[in-house]
Amino acid sequence: MFSAKSIIDKKREGRALGSAEIREFISGFTAGEIPDCQMSALAMAICCRGMTARETADLVEVMMNSGATIDWKGVVDRPVADKHSTGGVGDKLSFVIQPLAAACGLAVPSLVGRGLGLTGGTADKLEAIPGFKVSLSIDELKRVVAETGIALATQTAEIAPADRRLYALRDVTGTVASIPLITASILSKKLAEGAETLVFDVKCGRGAFMKDAAEAHALAESLVSGVCASGRRAAALVTDMDEPLGFSVGNACEVAEALEMLAPGAESGPLADIVGLSVEFAALMVSIARGVPLDDARAECSAHLADGSALAKFREMVAAQGGDLDAFARRLARPTVKYRIQSVRSGYVESIDADRVARVALSLGAGREKPDDRIDHLAGVRLAVRRGDRVAIGAPLATLEKGSDPDALERAAAELIKAFAISPTPPPPKPLVVERIGC
Amino acid sequence: MFSAKSIIDKKREGRALGSAEIREFISGFTAGEIPDCQMSALAMAICCRGMTARETADLVEVMMNSGATIDWKGVVDRPVADKHSTGGVGDKLSFVIQPLAAACGLAVPSLVGRGLGLTGGTADKLEAIPGFKVSLSIDELKRVVAETGIALATQTAEIAPADRRLYALRDVTGTVASIPLITASILSKKLAEGAETLVFDVKCGRGAFMKDAAEAHALAESLVSGVCASGRRAAALVTDMDEPLGFSVGNACEVAEALEMLAPGAESGPLADIVGLSVEFAALMVSIARGVPLDDARAECSAHLADGSALAKFREMVAAQGGDLDAFARRLARPTVKYRIQSVRSGYVESIDADRVARVALSLGAGREKPDDRIDHLAGVRLAVRRGDRVAIGAPLATLEKGSDPDALERAAAELIKAFAISPTPPPPKPLVVERIGC
Repeated sequence: MFSAKSIIDKKREGRALGSAEIREFISGFTAGEIPDCQMSALAMAICCRGMTARETADLVEVMMNSGATIDWKGVVDRPVADKHSTGGVGDKLSFVIQPLAAACGLAVPSLVGRGLGLTGGTADKLEAIPGFKVSLSIDELKRVVAETGIALATQTAEIAPADRRLYALRDVTGTVASIPLITASILSKKLAEGAETLVFDVKCGRGAFMKDAAEAHALAESLVSGVCASGRRAAALVTDMDEPLGFSVGNACEVAEALEMLAPGAESGPLADIVGLSVEFAALMVSIARGVPLDDARAECSAHLADGSALAKFREMVAAQGGDLDAFARRLARPTVKYRIQSVRSGYVESIDADRVARVALSLGAGREKPDDRIDHLAGVRLAVRRGDRVAIGAPLATLEKGSDPDALERAAAELIKAFAISPTPPPPKPLVVERIGC
Repeated sequence: MFSAKSIIDKKREGRALGSAEIREFISGFTAGEIPDCQMSALAMAICCRGMTARETADLVEVMMNSGATIDWKGVVDRPVADKHSTGGVGDKLSFVIQPLAAACGLAVPSLVGRGLGLTGGTADKLEAIPGFKVSLSIDELKRVVAETGIALATQTAEIAPADRRLYALRDVTGTVASIPLITASILSKKLAEGAETLVFDVKCGRGAFMKDAAEAHALAESLVSGVCASGRRAAALVTDMDEPLGFSVGNACEVAEALEMLAPGAESGPLADIVGLSVEFAALMVSIARGVPLDDARAECSAHLADGSALAKFREMVAAQGGDLDAFARRLARPTVKYRIQSVRSGYVESIDADRVARVALSLGAGREKPDDRIDHLAGVRLAVRRGDRVAIGAPLATLEKGSDPDALERAAAELIKAFAISPTPPPPKPLVVERIGC
């Protein structure tokens, strides 16, 4: 006989739950038959005692099957693939990787999230483009992907409702920090999306949820093995998230920076590092999805970036989802209030604390502290320097920007200056890719 | 700033909570400001990560102070003391220990519980005595103790409301099994009761919540150090609970057996073992409360048992709480349905599984499976043999008894027979007291 309490007891004692136990508990919770207090007790027991790979795979499956799953047969004849990032500061790489993969012939139906707290919201950034419709029904998503090979849209209510319900509870009960629960949350949505191959960007460092390499490694392994357990293919890169990615942290400014990254020639410009990382991810997607060697896939991606076809794909997707890039350019040109901070010493930029930059951007209105906060799409931080740059006394370090309210800028600036460490000697070089994990 | 979530995070990470954090969380929960889902997550984190002695003491204090605490100054001029048992099968020792301690000059205001599941309910047993009023207000409790030196009454709503609320939640969320939480639940009530010295009977074995000696030891240590942290004195005995205590498991039958234990001469009769254990506990109470050597206290207790003054004290308490022992004798004489089970082999009783006996008694209606189940006060199991006894084929092992419904008896009998292990050789002797723990 099924008993919620005996399942909680079992996990509290550190034993592995059976597939039927996981299925009945999660289904019962989603159906409202198991109360929040029991679900949060089980979630905490999972945080403390962990789950085996088999248990995690069972959890993924029941959460994925709690709602609709998208079938791409007869809709597209290309390989269906996606990339997921665990979230970083200034992470606008989805606007480059996904169009690049689509330009290489993959179908990329990418379900993206909204920001809350320090987590970036790809959906919020897209809404900085006037007219962009980020919320698509499953039928609309299918139509856009069939037409253009790519869509970036928010998860509909039909996809993985168990995850939505469980995540809301985990958020208030201190049970977010669990690799099996994070894995199930990510994979239930990504697998329901119908992707046959998945690539993960597991961020690691000050500005990431995973602060150290061991945790990031464990999550990357768990995500990849979770996908493989479902009979699909995956790979992951653990990437550095100590410093913000690129120069821009915000919404409109990140979309603008993504357009710079997509411009022909960007692979050798000031954004070369993150353009290179985007190429690496797109190449990994292409290599796994089409079974071509990684080097060939890299060359193909570089070519599609250089010839402007990735940028064209991005524009095509924006148009298909109702966005107006001309109106976006006019919005960017609107007057804003700005505040510039300067270096008080000369030397080399040793580090830029991504976590602090994110908190400042959040305080300016670039993100939400509570789910119903309104976002100021023009708010953000624009760095003038990056790690390793040489600065003189008085040299600009960053500009804070907002749609209105100059007073808030000055307070935030006092915080932002603390993000910069200036040292007399240059810091050692640091690769963006920390580790590679395959299926 | 106080944040429920950050407190949960801290405990999930295995760190010790501050006194203010514990106070604010528990007060917030009791006031209904912190929802059940957060409380159950914290309770599970405490189950998994534990608490230091200092954290446990803080938890005891805030739970004790969530309601009324009883002040005995000006009400009684004797030392106020109590005994608490973690609960055993056939455990009617409170009906002997508490009157014996009162006969030795202590004031014993004992708050007792109702049974649920396999936990015995001293309050339910008392209600087998017609007219016995087990629910007393604080004023009534004070009056009875002032008059007689003893009262056995249920915890009023004014005592430790935080515990009542938390216990109900722990019961459904698999978070009962935690030594700090058990300690806080017991001590918040016992200290609110106003006892200056406390003695604990920590049961250990098949029929107890604590199945092994290490766990029982840890709980005994935690209870004693929790009392000492509050500036009062305590001691604990870890006692064996593999076999039921005495011959009777039920309600009316246990009260009847307690009357036999209180009768002059019982120290050398068939109940000598549990009468001896009762003397040991009462002596411990007297020794700690009055500061006399334990041997002297033992002699005093034996004398008060032999001269009938403990029995007189029990009768006095029953009368003061409205009970009618003559009506109780008539109730016991009422016709019931009975079923006797017999041994199918000859040999020695190697063991009698207390847990199984308790489940059978519960199934007969001697306890509650759900909080609103009605108790059959005449239902129970009466053992004909005890561990070590020699039995012939066909010798009676036990009698099952109920107020009505003979069919249920037959089903239960099939279960009860499994409780008995008969072996060709006698089992080695086993002391009731496993370990002694002092302040």
